[in-house]
Amino acid sequence: MSKQSGLTKANRIVVDAMGGDYAPHEVVKGAVESSTKFGIEVILVGQPEAIQGELSRYTYDSTRLRVHPAEETIGMDEDPIRAIRRKKNSSIVVGMNLVKEGEAAAFVSGGSTGAVTAGASLLLGRKKHISRPALGVTFDSLNGPVMLLDVGANADCKPHHLVQFAEMGNIYMGKIFNIANPRIGLLSTGEEDFKGNKLTSSTHALLAKADINFVGNVEGQDIPKGGADIIVTDGFTGNVVIKLAEGMGEVLMRLAGGSKNGHSVIEAAKTRVLNHTAGALLLGVNGNVIITHGKSNADAITYSIYLAEQMIEQGVTEAIGN
Amino acid sequence: MSKQSGLTKANRIVVDAMGGDYAPHEVVKGAVESSTKFGIEVILVGQPEAIQGELSRYTYDSTRLRVHPAEETIGMDEDPIRAIRRKKNSSIVVGMNLVKEGEAAAFVSGGSTGAVTAGASLLLGRKKHISRPALGVTFDSLNGPVMLLDVGANADCKPHHLVQFAEMGNIYMGKIFNIANPRIGLLSTGEEDFKGNKLTSSTHALLAKADINFVGNVEGQDIPKGGADIIVTDGFTGNVVIKLAEGMGEVLMRLAGGSKNGHSVIEAAKTRVLNHTAGALLLGVNGNVIITHGKSNADAITYSIYLAEQMIEQGVTEAIGN
Repeated sequence: MSKQSGLTKANRIVVDAMGGDYAPHEVVKGAVESSTKFGIEVILVGQPEAIQGELSRYTYDSTRLRVHPAEETIGMDEDPIRAIRRKKNSSIVVGMNLVKEGEAAAFVSGGSTGAVTAGASLLLGRKKHISRPALGVTFDSLNGPVMLLDVGANADCKPHHLVQFAEMGNIYMGKIFNIANPRIGLLSTGEEDFKGNKLTSSTHALLAKADINFVGNVEGQDIPKGGADIIVTDGFTGNVVIKLAEGMGEVLMRLAGGSKNGHSVIEAAKTRVLNHTAGALLLGVNGNVIITHGKSNADAITYSIYLAEQMIEQGVTEAIGN
Repeated sequence: MSKQSGLTKANRIVVDAMGGDYAPHEVVKGAVESSTKFGIEVILVGQPEAIQGELSRYTYDSTRLRVHPAEETIGMDEDPIRAIRRKKNSSIVVGMNLVKEGEAAAFVSGGSTGAVTAGASLLLGRKKHISRPALGVTFDSLNGPVMLLDVGANADCKPHHLVQFAEMGNIYMGKIFNIANPRIGLLSTGEEDFKGNKLTSSTHALLAKADINFVGNVEGQDIPKGGADIIVTDGFTGNVVIKLAEGMGEVLMRLAGGSKNGHSVIEAAKTRVLNHTAGALLLGVNGNVIITHGKSNADAITYSIYLAEQMIEQGVTEAIGN
């Protein structure tokens, strides 16, 4: 990232300083780094004293990094919709409203996925033609980046939802990873058209007619192997997939604990294949929303902020429609 | 395995010599080993010339290992039900009929999962009270063996199917792994009861009332971590899980290819966590049926035959009911 220009409110990114297991420490650190190294304009939203306490450790340009107060926080175990409706002064609601009011163009949070998703739908609103916003992650496969969506916003899906996921993924992978005509696969239980469940069977027929590069059914192994650039699935299956991948990474690290070399090999492989370090993107709402992993450190936060900036610059949200 | 007694037809195991990527070579090798080392009585079913050609490499006890002819084979891409109905002289149909007629007590095959499953349902028949036979695999988690079912026999499931899967898994893990009162989890998207999709939500209520040790919802990471002894899910999700796990193992091996030490660490970890070497068990039919992995080598075949023998000795199929 080279740009030092364009520091208008159209490029500002709101970062939820209170979201994630290592908030506010790692979040503030990542925000400072994004601002100082990459010249990104950041608004840290959250409890001012806590944020200022962290900020006092660093030298930063206050024209590019400022604090916006939000006294409340939404816990990981709170009912998402109720929390968004009641906690008007929470970092998620206040941050999302800054995007809604045009004070910033993206919201980055490591808070409750449910609360951020609900907040985006309720406060920013969904795109008119998108029935269900979707959460997407990208895995770094043997064959380049692979986007998987939905990974948890919609546990029960209809075939046309998956078609919309494919169309949104198509725009995202084209604009962010510069993949022309990305290969879109439908996660199923066999390559043959007839394999799968009722949902994939009906979805297959719709995807085949859609104006995308549909390559047919793909299977579980195609995620790490990169059998498609975009893999669509219902949010239940997608959520099981990302948690299994993450769990396997953790378990492999523990098993390799006794061997330093083995440990480093697995660490590298894990980072490469099993992780989705950029967090999840919420596509289909009126704003760029990135949900970072709850365990994000400063580097992961910085990467998510960078990605948010790319989404703004490439106009991902606008390209999806109104 | 120590027993040298009980070599009656009640303990015989039919092995499909034609099933799997390395058939008949590795299958025959595994069958010979099971017979000579462990004293298991094996019937190899398939093309006699091909089997005899392989058998000529070994010394074996012909009272414990014999060949039963079946000239046809069922390919991996054939429609399962049609193939079972038409190819009466295929190794799968002939082998399954040997079990049906009481000539043997178990059938082990590395052939098409769909064909073996269809053959078992059509020829052996399902247990009266089991609506849907299920395919189960066991993973070796950080916390001991974890059984996952269904992994592909039933892409679309109803809540009561998953309850039956839990009950069958309960018997299997109790008898084969000697786990008293195994912890049974429902694969979902969050630990909280309300998390998941419509299927898990209805299933959760039924499992809570069933006479099993139901520990609630578990998530993807609980498979490698061993968050339950038995994890039930629909066959679509389960199939995605086993293929993802297998694909990750392969990809990790390739990434670690440059480092000998790293390679061996990943190999060990992969064997431990990512594999389900024993193949899949088909529970809920009138017979012990094991579907070995298509890529099984002789050791994996031997292990599957050993497992079949354990299922016979422990009376798993009988314990599930009539």
